[in-house]
Amino acid sequence: MIKVTIWNEFRHEQEIPAIAAIYPKGIHGQLAEALAAEDLEIRTATLDQPEHGLTDEVLQSTDVLVWWGHCAHALVRDDIVEKVHQRILEGMGLIVLHSGHFSKIFKRVTGCTCSLKWREAGEKCRLWNIAPTHPITQGIGEYFELPHEEMYGERFDIPEDGKVIFIGWFEGGNVFRSGVTFERGYGKVFYFQPGHESYPTYYDANVIKVIGNAIRWARPVFFRAHSAPNSPALEEIRSVDTAPHAAVLQNADGTNR
Amino acid sequence: MIKVTIWNEFRHEQEIPAIAAIYPKGIHGQLAEALAAEDLEIRTATLDQPEHGLTDEVLQSTDVLVWWGHCAHALVRDDIVEKVHQRILEGMGLIVLHSGHFSKIFKRVTGCTCSLKWREAGEKCRLWNIAPTHPITQGIGEYFELPHEEMYGERFDIPEDGKVIFIGWFEGGNVFRSGVTFERGYGKVFYFQPGHESYPTYYDANVIKVIGNAIRWARPVFFRAHSAPNSPALEEIRSVDTAPHAAVLQNADGTNR
Amino acid sequence: MIKVTIWNEFRHEQEIPAIAAIYPKGIHGQLAEALAAEDLEIRTATLDQPEHGLTDEVLQSTDVLVWWGHCAHALVRDDIVEKVHQRILEGMGLIVLHSGHFSKIFKRVTGCTCSLKWREAGEKCRLWNIAPTHPITQGIGEYFELPHEEMYGERFDIPEDGKVIFIGWFEGGNVFRSGVTFERGYGKVFYFQPGHESYPTYYDANVIKVIGNAIRWARPVFFRAHSAPNSPALEEIRSVDTAPHAAVLQNADGTNR
Amino acid sequence: MIKVTIWNEFRHEQEIPAIAAIYPKGIHGQLAEALAAEDLEIRTATLDQPEHGLTDEVLQSTDVLVWWGHCAHALVRDDIVEKVHQRILEGMGLIVLHSGHFSKIFKRVTGCTCSLKWREAGEKCRLWNIAPTHPITQGIGEYFELPHEEMYGERFDIPEDGKVIFIGWFEGGNVFRSGVTFERGYGKVFYFQPGHESYPTYYDANVIKVIGNAIRWARPVFFRAHSAPNSPALEEIRSVDTAPHAAVLQNADGTNR
Repeated sequence: MIKVTIWNEFRHEQEIPAIAAIYPKGIHGQLAEALAAEDLEIRTATLDQPEHGLTDEVLQSTDVLVWWGHCAHALVRDDIVEKVHQRILEGMGLIVLHSGHFSKIFKRVTGCTCSLKWREAGEKCRLWNIAPTHPITQGIGEYFELPHEEMYGERFDIPEDGKVIFIGWFEGGNVFRSGVTFERGYGKVFYFQPGHESYPTYYDANVIKVIGNAIRWARPVFFRAHSAPNSPALEEIRSVDTAPHAAVLQNADGTNR
Repeated sequence: MIKVTIWNEFRHEQEIPAIAAIYPKGIHGQLAEALAAEDLEIRTATLDQPEHGLTDEVLQSTDVLVWWGHCAHALVRDDIVEKVHQRILEGMGLIVLHSGHFSKIFKRVTGCTCSLKWREAGEKCRLWNIAPTHPITQGIGEYFELPHEEMYGERFDIPEDGKVIFIGWFEGGNVFRSGVTFERGYGKVFYFQPGHESYPTYYDANVIKVIGNAIRWARPVFFRAHSAPNSPALEEIRSVDTAPHAAVLQNADGTNR
Repeated sequence: MIKVTIWNEFRHEQEIPAIAAIYPKGIHGQLAEALAAEDLEIRTATLDQPEHGLTDEVLQSTDVLVWWGHCAHALVRDDIVEKVHQRILEGMGLIVLHSGHFSKIFKRVTGCTCSLKWREAGEKCRLWNIAPTHPITQGIGEYFELPHEEMYGERFDIPEDGKVIFIGWFEGGNVFRSGVTFERGYGKVFYFQPGHESYPTYYDANVIKVIGNAIRWARPVFFRAHSAPNSPALEEIRSVDTAPHAAVLQNADGTNR
Repeated sequence: MIKVTIWNEFRHEQEIPAIAAIYPKGIHGQLAEALAAEDLEIRTATLDQPEHGLTDEVLQSTDVLVWWGHCAHALVRDDIVEKVHQRILEGMGLIVLHSGHFSKIFKRVTGCTCSLKWREAGEKCRLWNIAPTHPITQGIGEYFELPHEEMYGERFDIPEDGKVIFIGWFEGGNVFRSGVTFERGYGKVFYFQPGHESYPTYYDANVIKVIGNAIRWARPVFFRAHSAPNSPALEEIRSVDTAPHAAVLQNADGTNR
């Protein structure tokens, strides 16, 4: 059983009727429903809950955290971001969706600006499967299409260890590394571009398939705290420094070099 | 002319006579002296200066920042770390030395804990040159040795895009990725293990050669701010969504799906 | 059930009594015995069999090929290496052991010389686990030791996508990327350093654990032939070139530019 | 002075008048003319010359080899491919253009099939600059366009260490890793997609700029033969195996284990 927590900022759906009409239960609600499966134990959490719904208890019992945020990135508390980051380093998986590229947590794990080009033009996009043997692409063909998506385009400012799973083609002339994996500490991270709030992207079977695969791929191998231990020698050390450094560094007349 | 700022926490040298004897001008002073060259314009900055010596003016006129810290990582102000990080993403080079692996700035650029094993036993270490064609290893042979160094050992918790330049062998039985490069934003980053404060490591010709090479390698190609621009379409978009999503997602009886 | 074929050049064991005493059934025989498990269907093949034991039928029914060779690399037929290579690209896993670093097949998949330093001095070696979450290291601690092994040392001439799983420490002062993974086509490849013929390395529980893990990791996701298809356009193309190129490239007076 | 040899199969230009009209001096002739610069000493070589124009003398005096081939890949002699490969491993740069993705030499250095999708439809393509600080992209903006090119599309079967410099967008709906670097041995390799023989691509200023940059980037740091030396111990070895292995491996009754 994989314990999944789907986090959503949940603002657009409450503030904009057209978006509420697409996601009446919120993006988190739709994802929870679409991803439901026997091997997944799914909870949701949202920005406006106490501690954004990410209490210590929740984080300690989460195997994989899914993250959707957009207009309220700045409102996410730094101390909670710090806890989420530490839990990823200890083993928790993280799936960052769409506008989550600019979330505090994704910038923290990448160390980059995560900037990109964008355009809301309702254009067609096609995601090419670059990694056909990867667990995340199983059940996905050579490509899949979304009839309308927000354009996210290069240059996407992410580190080079971002293993490219999908490259996106956009009708308006742009390309994007639309699916990218990272490892940080003992945790696995997947960024996935689709999911603009004004399109019914999270009803798409391929998108849901990819996110479900990613959750299973990002499942922790183990949880383990990191430490920086003073480690006794495993072999005899015979080079111990006996000459006082100061002497070594003094001139013959006793002045410092 | 490359503008270099050497930053040093500068505490051990002021507090511990044995270390002051090795580095009477501070680690920063020794590095500045040893690295002096016609193509480098070198300044130093230390923790106890106003704004840690890293004012906006200094950062704006620094091409490559060299960083040594150890016991006072926690005293470095977060707002200044943030400014240093942004400047790296805009193009500034960063050379992180030895115990700087646990500095706030190195953890920020890697997104990892940067934890490792360590031991102070004055043991011999040998750094093997894994990347003989890399600019950082020019003038360095197949390996070089340090008679006494602090052991830093695996597992070193860093991201996989850390390109390995040196692998260290330690007499006491450990190994370490002792020289590793990263790119973040438009900036280049090099981590280099040698330099424990109680050994005269920064008087070693090979160590200085490597740091000097790294400075030249990390020189900015350009400085450029990042942005996330709304980008007009480069090609005509014909897929514009005309059906209201709400309608698409409504059942025949008008209830939401 | 994973179909494993263990290939051994099987010369030292037949020609040198001291080695026959260590591996009376051959290195392949010992590996087959030590790796025996319910989920593995293990066969062996050797150089002196017809077609080196690697007929089309054998290759078509092999999921993972394990390779040990040393003094007779040059005797392996090029046409059979070509078939093995193609089968890897279609999905077959490859585990290359020890002196197999200089096998034709490992040089083919890496495109490098795969050269290294070596020394037969019976020295101790310690393999540090650099990738604790990787399937290949499950059940292995922070490191394991071999009391006597041939030294293989850097610089190991392999491509940069060699993901480092183990770094080896040798008593005589060398280090080595002792476990490294690659992907080629749809196939996974693992190189593992331990296994000199004059030491009983393949009786070591950790070594066998690693090879067993690697076999399971390298299991094909699928077998699929590669093709370079002429692909019809997925979108309407409106930029078709109507101007004859020659005209475009002619000067006004009709001479070629 | 960088010694450049531009190799061209030079068949289409001699056999097809429409292509001869575009490249009256051959693709190699046009490249030589367009790339001419004070720091480059450019020669050309073609398939039908003795030893394909790649004699030992030519290879020994070439810093960077540029390669264009298409219909005659199979006619390139294996022994010459072997020599070219060895020279790359010793330090020579290699720039592989367009249909050279299927050349023997590119398959040798990558160890992959290098297969891809293709389509000749005269469509527009746009190459996005993913690596703005890389030497190969200096002087190139965020993207550049070619009005008519052959489509090369994913999935491109190359190794993961292919650092992506350009991602191509094609009007007909495909994407491609259009510029990719590798390192093999001491040599640098760049693959670049543009250059179908029926379009005047090698008259395009951006394409020529990229190839020129790549030549300078791929310039050898040094030429050095590879060896696999028996290396004396650097440290005293005290673990020498004194117990005969056979004894260790015998049962109490003297039978072999």
